[in-house]
Amino acid sequence: MAQHFRLGIDLGGTLVKLARVDSQGHARGLLKIKTERDPVLLAKSLAQALKAWPRVSWRGTGVAVAGDVDPKQGVVRFAPNLGWRQLPLGKIFRQAGLPQPLFFDNDATAAAWGAYHAEFHDHINHLVVLTLGTGVGGGLVVEGRLVHGATGSAGEIGHMGVDPRGPRCSCGRRGCLEVYLGGSAMVRWAKRAWARAGKVPPGDITPRVLEDLALQGDPVAKKTWARAADALGSALANLVNIFNPEVILLTGGVAGGAPLFLPRALQVMRENAFETPGRAVKVKVSRHRSDLGVMGAALLVP
Amino acid sequence: MAQHFRLGIDLGGTLVKLARVDSQGHARGLLKIKTERDPVLLAKSLAQALKAWPRVSWRGTGVAVAGDVDPKQGVVRFAPNLGWRQLPLGKIFRQAGLPQPLFFDNDATAAAWGAYHAEFHDHINHLVVLTLGTGVGGGLVVEGRLVHGATGSAGEIGHMGVDPRGPRCSCGRRGCLEVYLGGSAMVRWAKRAWARAGKVPPGDITPRVLEDLALQGDPVAKKTWARAADALGSALANLVNIFNPEVILLTGGVAGGAPLFLPRALQVMRENAFETPGRAVKVKVSRHRSDLGVMGAALLVP
Repeated sequence: MAQHFRLGIDLGGTLVKLARVDSQGHARGLLKIKTERDPVLLAKSLAQALKAWPRVSWRGTGVAVAGDVDPKQGVVRFAPNLGWRQLPLGKIFRQAGLPQPLFFDNDATAAAWGAYHAEFHDHINHLVVLTLGTGVGGGLVVEGRLVHGATGSAGEIGHMGVDPRGPRCSCGRRGCLEVYLGGSAMVRWAKRAWARAGKVPPGDITPRVLEDLALQGDPVAKKTWARAADALGSALANLVNIFNPEVILLTGGVAGGAPLFLPRALQVMRENAFETPGRAVKVKVSRHRSDLGVMGAALLVP
Repeated sequence: MAQHFRLGIDLGGTLVKLARVDSQGHARGLLKIKTERDPVLLAKSLAQALKAWPRVSWRGTGVAVAGDVDPKQGVVRFAPNLGWRQLPLGKIFRQAGLPQPLFFDNDATAAAWGAYHAEFHDHINHLVVLTLGTGVGGGLVVEGRLVHGATGSAGEIGHMGVDPRGPRCSCGRRGCLEVYLGGSAMVRWAKRAWARAGKVPPGDITPRVLEDLALQGDPVAKKTWARAADALGSALANLVNIFNPEVILLTGGVAGGAPLFLPRALQVMRENAFETPGRAVKVKVSRHRSDLGVMGAALLVP
């Protein structure tokens, strides 16, 4: 009997991941190709890549995009890392013959859906996922449902205000969670702090390097993680008071720095959240840090 | 043919409201009785009050409580206005013969459910309700479902942090929305500001009096509403970025001051929220300011 697979596509700024997911929700193949920014070339390269899985019968395709997506229309409203605005990606992918029907969502929202199935096997009803990378993405599962919101824009937890007098965020607001915990913003802040202190940081700075430097006792690197911890703790308290989730899951590359920020963030969370939901929540670091987006994308297909 | 009614009970600190709601979700009778703080006496007074509706066949009872409620167990964990802690209200109400099955929830959560049905007739999927009274309560409807959370504690939007350096809230945290927009906190802040300015405010101060004084140009009263507006605007931006709701509804007595705070709050919201969800949301003041809780309580009965 023919297996019916779901196709997941996670469109990142440099790489596209494709996953073939079986009817039990397990990955049965993963591919990576270079991202073409021309959407027609991209669609062709995807159709070409799919030939790696011949004679597969598809139930449909789920697409996760790093940006603001209209899931109903299959339109990418704005994807800064891909250079797209108001792009009818659904139409382009249909014309290229990608398996239909097609479903679209934001990548962090898709990652939350992937985590819900892959890490918790649907055993919980209330999950918040924070994707800690260059920026801070978010996704919500509430009462067992993935939350899209009125225009598919829900889950922008990285742009929750933490301090109205804080540094300006790329979104224009002051003191978003992302200006403290986003990889780019952390590196920017640390470089400025070193410059003010008349020190030159060693080589290329990444969040990973900030981890090493903090472990070696560098005061600027330590302060960078402490600021991130305080901001995260405050944001976690908000999430606990508003959603009362069973689990808050941290994923993405910067989540690797959890030993440097999570203990303090949890302390701040407990000091600021209500007692009952504060005791009930588990804050965890994901075991699957890289494939939740593409898995969740595939699972957008019903 | 016998009609099957739902019974709604809204337990406030001074008054209890009872509503008889028909199968179409319309109120077919409303009663108010004095709140007995002894839960056994309260249950008896409710059973007595129900005799006003003889020969009614009941589908069940929904109970809204001003406090932290465990909906699954029917236990009131903490209700400061009623002086209750860890009270097995479900058991007491069952023993008093109130119509079963019994459903419990927080009053602001019930109000959100009441608003969803009464004001929007289920025509929207994503609703946030802020109940502006002595404190600031909240309730969420997401993807068409009332959000209870893992322990029934979801929706405490009044205890979202707005400013980490703000005044201390009754919950222990600094700078919650409630310290700027809650009726009690507004009155407290205004009295202190008048005292600092060496002025004695006229008579009893309530949020209603603060409205009148602001309209008459009193600088402290005007500042009280301006602070509330800024805090609300910031909280609205968070709600928009996280939930992407279709409607945010303001209800409760302090919502009457909306002309004094809403225009500025909306401006702050638009400056700080993402563009797509910020344009999509409608922020409204409820037409039914007092009965949403008891209606929502009745509608907790499936």
